[in-house]
Amino acid sequence: MNFPAVYLASTSPRRRELLTQIGVDFSVINIDIDECMTRQESPEQYVKRIALAKAVAGWNMLKADWRPVLAADTAVVLKTGQVLGKPENLQQAREYLQQLSATSHQVMSAVAIVWQQQHWVVLQTNEVHFKQLTEAEIAWYLATGEGGDKAGGYAVQGLAAMFIKSIKGSYSGVMGLPLFETSQLLQQVNIANEQ
Amino acid sequence: MNFPAVYLASTSPRRRELLTQIGVDFSVINIDIDECMTRQESPEQYVKRIALAKAVAGWNMLKADWRPVLAADTAVVLKTGQVLGKPENLQQAREYLQQLSATSHQVMSAVAIVWQQQHWVVLQTNEVHFKQLTEAEIAWYLATGEGGDKAGGYAVQGLAAMFIKSIKGSYSGVMGLPLFETSQLLQQVNIANEQ
Repeated sequence: MNFPAVYLASTSPRRRELLTQIGVDFSVINIDIDECMTRQESPEQYVKRIALAKAVAGWNMLKADWRPVLAADTAVVLKTGQVLGKPENLQQAREYLQQLSATSHQVMSAVAIVWQQQHWVVLQTNEVHFKQLTEAEIAWYLATGEGGDKAGGYAVQGLAAMFIKSIKGSYSGVMGLPLFETSQLLQQVNIANEQ
Repeated sequence: MNFPAVYLASTSPRRRELLTQIGVDFSVINIDIDECMTRQESPEQYVKRIALAKAVAGWNMLKADWRPVLAADTAVVLKTGQVLGKPENLQQAREYLQQLSATSHQVMSAVAIVWQQQHWVVLQTNEVHFKQLTEAEIAWYLATGEGGDKAGGYAVQGLAAMFIKSIKGSYSGVMGLPLFETSQLLQQVNIANEQ
């Protein structure tokens, strides 16, 4: 595919790996934005807003460069509507796993691209079904340390794969960068570029 | 998790990678069996039979060794019931992609374990939904050579991720070794071992 080279406004190793998987040429940039959720917004609005804010921050930082800036954001959302971020400590990580056990939750990933005066944002939603976790399994998983820096406190591409009975949606979306949607966006940028 | 060390009767690099992901200690063995489908059997029966035949062949080859032998088999099944294996040439690979385009198909993976007088087999089924592929996209994908040695002629973990709108089931199952089911089987072997 003839994709434009981009800046990736994310330091997540998973997103880098996924972008590499579809053959996109990219450079990583480090941006820092406020990721607080406002009271009025839904999880969908929140994830889209943060992804776009990251891409805009990247674009503003680089200025006048010719490459599009791509960013993404991912949230784990319980059936209650509660959004789980990265666990702050072991106790919270344990509570997250207890909440995920024996039920399904949503993983929402938004991808945003900013290029010159234009921007594109897409939201991709997944359903992830966990098996019932025993206290021993939770203790074992916490001891591996794998989920500490991940939304919801687990890594779908790691040992937690054993806990996941099924997913509905996109594996790359659960990992943090939905590849079908990302490639579609990049093609739109290409078309805009040709006009 | 406290898994037994096993022999993996498969030389697929994807299966090795997946088994490593869940921390199973294994050695690879190379077995060779006849994979012909009989007229009477369904795709489900076929995939389970081949997975078990691989594990049995592995067990018989090693004999008297104490470790369980794990094997798997995967088939891509169209809505018509047709089973797609590895494409034999470029023309067949092109026809496969044309048949997968703009519709969904099933990917069935069976996992089998043989240990002493016992065996276990489990079937895991996925639904994979492809976007509509243009002739240009098919030609481009064939030129990458990625799908040549894979059932159905595509690699979910590679560039073909761009073609997949959604999956329902298990990503590792589509790749060839469903990790939830595999870990459940290994736990059953452990329990049998303790009795």
